[in-house]
Amino acid sequence: MPVRNKQWLLESRPSGQARESDFRLREADLSALHDGQVLVKVHYLSLDPYMRGRMNDARSYATPQPLGEVMIGGTVGEILESKNPKFTPGESVVGMGGWQEYFVSDGKGLMKADTRALPASVYLGCVGMPGITAWYGLTHIGRPKPGETVVVSAASGAVGSVVGQLARNKGCRTVGIAGGKAKCTYVTDELGFDACIDYKADGFFDKLVEATPNRIDVVFENVGGRVFDAALARMNDFGRVIICGMIAGYDGQDLPLKNVGSILTNRLLVQGFIVSEHMEVWPQALRDLAGYVSQGKIKYRETIAQGIESAPKAFIGLLKGENFGKQLVKVS
Amino acid sequence: MPVRNKQWLLESRPSGQARESDFRLREADLSALHDGQVLVKVHYLSLDPYMRGRMNDARSYATPQPLGEVMIGGTVGEILESKNPKFTPGESVVGMGGWQEYFVSDGKGLMKADTRALPASVYLGCVGMPGITAWYGLTHIGRPKPGETVVVSAASGAVGSVVGQLARNKGCRTVGIAGGKAKCTYVTDELGFDACIDYKADGFFDKLVEATPNRIDVVFENVGGRVFDAALARMNDFGRVIICGMIAGYDGQDLPLKNVGSILTNRLLVQGFIVSEHMEVWPQALRDLAGYVSQGKIKYRETIAQGIESAPKAFIGLLKGENFGKQLVKVS
Repeated sequence: MPVRNKQWLLESRPSGQARESDFRLREADLSALHDGQVLVKVHYLSLDPYMRGRMNDARSYATPQPLGEVMIGGTVGEILESKNPKFTPGESVVGMGGWQEYFVSDGKGLMKADTRALPASVYLGCVGMPGITAWYGLTHIGRPKPGETVVVSAASGAVGSVVGQLARNKGCRTVGIAGGKAKCTYVTDELGFDACIDYKADGFFDKLVEATPNRIDVVFENVGGRVFDAALARMNDFGRVIICGMIAGYDGQDLPLKNVGSILTNRLLVQGFIVSEHMEVWPQALRDLAGYVSQGKIKYRETIAQGIESAPKAFIGLLKGENFGKQLVKVS
Repeated sequence: MPVRNKQWLLESRPSGQARESDFRLREADLSALHDGQVLVKVHYLSLDPYMRGRMNDARSYATPQPLGEVMIGGTVGEILESKNPKFTPGESVVGMGGWQEYFVSDGKGLMKADTRALPASVYLGCVGMPGITAWYGLTHIGRPKPGETVVVSAASGAVGSVVGQLARNKGCRTVGIAGGKAKCTYVTDELGFDACIDYKADGFFDKLVEATPNRIDVVFENVGGRVFDAALARMNDFGRVIICGMIAGYDGQDLPLKNVGSILTNRLLVQGFIVSEHMEVWPQALRDLAGYVSQGKIKYRETIAQGIESAPKAFIGLLKGENFGKQLVKVS
């Protein structure tokens, strides 16, 4: 009997905020495997801010998500059936399976994951793409020295939380920016940042100044907009600004910056990057990150939506900051 | 009989545009030289946009110009009297003599200039600080490859004109941005840029698009503001943006940028710098630039105000773009 597969397709491109109606659920039978293929049953789907960018038809680093096709997304799952000698049923694999319950792959881009050592979901978070994003941006662009001050926006999120803990482990003063008291408390009390500032509360800039008595050497920017602008006004000479995300502008908003002059007066380095263009660092980054997680030096939190049906709603919540830590969908 | 020296002092810090009344002319007698000192008679004073920044009392890369002291500035002049064995009367020297007719120096920071090979004024322009600024920013940050497109703002100015000619000599498509038809015609017809766009004319962005059919790989930014924002919207992947000046914001204006997302989507490198922090490149840069000028591969134009009395007025004109090419004051 053929396997029924539930899949989310991109139905329409949002103008402004993404809505659930931009996605369409389809049920389809899976066809039999060809030689060289494997069938993967998805356990967890990763939801990430970059997906919002793919929904637009704009020139960007990635081709847009095609309409009428399965939404892209990172997954961790299990080999259910294999006609590829490199994979055996029962093995856990990380890959770009998309927003669906099952997928067929020729094995390219599938990476085996040791789910005895660490929980499977971690490979979509701090020992996966978000963690490597943090690791690459901080170590290769930010290059913080012990004693320097590192500021991270979206500090409780999948990327930001790892950035801050890596910086703290390196002996930096680590200041997070997050939305709401609960997230800020988590960032300081659980993740061990030196401070965390609620961007939704009054007196944001004054609090940023107070939390950065030696000014700022490294900014890891996930959000953009006025929070980023505030950090620019507080930079030290030769500061480094890692542009990892601009979630505040993903719906097409302008993100005006006023403190651009800081790039000149402080001789800043500002560098945008995407981690998938730096695959050469993945093995080392994964080793480092897995080690830190095993030793409890990187902690994490997950928000898990249940069932593939919940993906669009959870994704829209993520874009609004309703998640707490890494946003996942438990698919099976 | 003591030598009378006319000097311009900073009298007050401007709020907004600098005015002539922010400067005060003083006449003072020069005292006799001590051992190790030289007396320099200034022939040319360089006027440069960075001076406006020094007039503010803001945190920046340089300490502010102190009130009541002689305005800083680069000069080329002649040793009139020497109690320093390294210098002989009659020698030409480049240094930071300031806005005055004579200055006394212990010789530190004075560089001898060969004024038989090249006119003295060139050592304040394309074979001086502005030229090295262009050379450093382009070769060390921009790193353009032959065939790439380089966009330069303030393209007829002391820095911009050298940037474009260096890029053209390297085989790049070179597009200038300048204010007014006369400057644009000079930039294309005399300096050999492939195109130059008048930022004061209508349809600026459309013309920028037309002039950059392969988009933009390198931006050398001297101005900031909407011109910079337009270039950001037109960048190629892995583009480099050299932040050399923000003259549009020197009076304290905000320079809002809308196209900040380009730093992420195009994975840009944006780097601010000041050339005085890279003294190690000066010998090589000066050799290169002097060679190009001698061979006619770098051309230049000068606007020369007459007499030290004219310095404030000429400086304010420079900030408004009233000069054409390098702004100098002929002091003696």
